[in-house]
Amino acid sequence: MTSESFSRAAIIGIGLIGSSLGRAMREAGVAGTIVGFDQSPDVIRRAAACGVVDAPAASLDEALVGADLIVVSTPVGAMATVLAEIAAKAEAGALVIDVGSVKGAVVTAAADLNPRVHIVPCHPVAGTEQSGPEAGFASLFKDRWSIITPLARHDEAYLAAVKCAADLWRAVGAHVELMDHQHHDLALAITSHLPHLIAFTLVGAADDLESVTEAEIVKYSAGGFRDFTRIAASDPVMWRDVFVNNKDAVLEVLGRFTEELALLQRAIRWGDAETLEKVFARGRSLRRAIVAAGQEKDVPNFGRDEKA
Amino acid sequence: MTSESFSRAAIIGIGLIGSSLGRAMREAGVAGTIVGFDQSPDVIRRAAACGVVDAPAASLDEALVGADLIVVSTPVGAMATVLAEIAAKAEAGALVIDVGSVKGAVVTAAADLNPRVHIVPCHPVAGTEQSGPEAGFASLFKDRWSIITPLARHDEAYLAAVKCAADLWRAVGAHVELMDHQHHDLALAITSHLPHLIAFTLVGAADDLESVTEAEIVKYSAGGFRDFTRIAASDPVMWRDVFVNNKDAVLEVLGRFTEELALLQRAIRWGDAETLEKVFARGRSLRRAIVAAGQEKDVPNFGRDEKA
Repeated sequence: MTSESFSRAAIIGIGLIGSSLGRAMREAGVAGTIVGFDQSPDVIRRAAACGVVDAPAASLDEALVGADLIVVSTPVGAMATVLAEIAAKAEAGALVIDVGSVKGAVVTAAADLNPRVHIVPCHPVAGTEQSGPEAGFASLFKDRWSIITPLARHDEAYLAAVKCAADLWRAVGAHVELMDHQHHDLALAITSHLPHLIAFTLVGAADDLESVTEAEIVKYSAGGFRDFTRIAASDPVMWRDVFVNNKDAVLEVLGRFTEELALLQRAIRWGDAETLEKVFARGRSLRRAIVAAGQEKDVPNFGRDEKA
Repeated sequence: MTSESFSRAAIIGIGLIGSSLGRAMREAGVAGTIVGFDQSPDVIRRAAACGVVDAPAASLDEALVGADLIVVSTPVGAMATVLAEIAAKAEAGALVIDVGSVKGAVVTAAADLNPRVHIVPCHPVAGTEQSGPEAGFASLFKDRWSIITPLARHDEAYLAAVKCAADLWRAVGAHVELMDHQHHDLALAITSHLPHLIAFTLVGAADDLESVTEAEIVKYSAGGFRDFTRIAASDPVMWRDVFVNNKDAVLEVLGRFTEELALLQRAIRWGDAETLEKVFARGRSLRRAIVAAGQEKDVPNFGRDEKA
C-alpha cells in the first residue's frame, strides 16, 4: 500500500472499531484527511477532542464529500440504511468497507445497491470490552485476522477494490482471509457470537440467584466468573444486532452447545467421573494452539497476577 | 501471626495451590522447615528441584513426623482417604487445613475423624489455569479471599485452630471469610464451578463442529473464544472431582443458567431485540464492581494488547 492511498477517509460510526481504524490509518500514513460522522453529536465532539478525526462532519452527506474511502463502523442493524445512502451519494468509485461482526446481512443489504461505489464487506476479528471513541487504539488490529466476504461482483474495478481493502488491513497490521459470508457467519458464531451469548447468560443467571449476594459474587469472582464478565461488559446494542442478524448460525452452534452441556449435566448427575475427565482433558491442546498462533499471550491468568 | 508460627509444615499434594502456599509461607516466614509429599515421585522430585520444599518425604507417614501444620492440597476426591490417615498418624494437636474447591465433602469426611488433630476446611479462591509445582508463586493469594468452613466442633482447642488458620491466610496476603459449607458450595458453584463447566462445554462443542476447522477456531479466537480456553485449560482431574463432589449445588445453578439461556434462545429465534439488549445491558455493572473490589485489573482485554 503506497503512502496516502486515500486522500480523504470518512469514518461513519466512531466507536471502538471506527476510532481504532482511524488511529491506525493515521499511524500507517495511508489516509490524508480523516473525517468522522456519528449519529450522536456528543460522540462526534469527543472523537474530535481526542484527535481521532481531523474534521468532524455535521451530517452523513457532509462526511461523504470528496471521500475516496468510507468506513462503516455502526452497529450491524444500522448498516443497510447507511450503505443505501452511501451508494446513492458518495463519490463514484469510492471504496466502502464495513467492519460488522455479521456478514450475510451486510452482503444482502449491499447486493442490489448501485455499483458506482465498491462495497467490500469486512470483519476485523479484534476488539475489547470497551466502547466509544476514547477506547480505540492504533494497534488493535496488529496480528489479528480481518475477514473479507466479497460481493458477487466480478468486474475489474470491484476486484481492484477488494485488493485495496485487503492492502488497507495489512497496512494496519492485520492478516487477511477471504471467504464466503455463509462460512464467515458460522465460523464467527462459534468463535465469537456463542461465547458472548454464554457470557451474557451466565452473568444474568448470577444476577438472578437470590441465595448468593452480589457482594459474594464479586468477592469470589476470581474462581472463574470474572473472566466471563469481561465479555459480558461488551456493548449491548452492537451485540443485540449481531444476534438479530445471525440467527440461523447462532441457533445452529447453540444447539451443539446445549447437546454437549446435557451430556455433562447427565455425567454430573450420575457421578460419571470418567466422562467428565475425558471431556475436560480436551481444553488444553486448543489453548496451546491459540497461544502458538500468536492469538493469546503466553502467560498464566492473562498476566493478571503480579509475581513480585 | 508471629514469625515461624509453625516449626514444620507438611504439604501433601504439591500442585499449583500447594506449591504456591509453600512459597508464600516461606516468604512470610511463618514456617520453619517445609516438607512435601505427593503420590507422584516425579512431582516430589520437581518440587524439591524448584525449591518449594526443603525436604521431600518418601511417604505420607514420613511427611507427618513432627509436622505442626499439615496442608492437604490434593484433588478433592483424594481428601477423605488422606485426612483419615492424617487423623490417625499426625502429631496430636497439629493444625490440618485443606484447600479444596468443595467444602461439603471435606466437612463430611472430617466430621467423624479423631479430634486429636484439628482439621480446618479452607478454600483459597485463587488459581491459574496452570498445574504442577513449577506453576506456583508466592503472591497467588494476595488480595484474594480464603473461605473457612469450620467443623461442628466448639472446643477451645478447635476454635484456636480456626483462628490460627485464618491468621495463616492473612499472613500470605488473603482476606478471610467464615461461612457454613452449604453456602460455600452454592456460592462457589455460581462463581467458579459453573463458569468452568460452561468453558469446558464450549471448547468441546467447538471441537465437535465438522464445518469449522480447528485452524479457523484458532485464528478467529480473538472474537471471544480464547477467553474460555484459559479456564478450559485447567486441571481435568481437579475439576472432575469438583463436579462429582458438588453435584447438587452445580445442578441447581446449572438449572438457572439453562433457563436464562432458553429465554435468550427464544429471543434470538423471534428477533426480540428489546429482550436481548435488556439482558446484555446487565453485564457492565457487575464487571465494574469486580474491578472496584480489586478482584480484576482495570485494563481492557485483560491487558493483553500492547498499545505501542
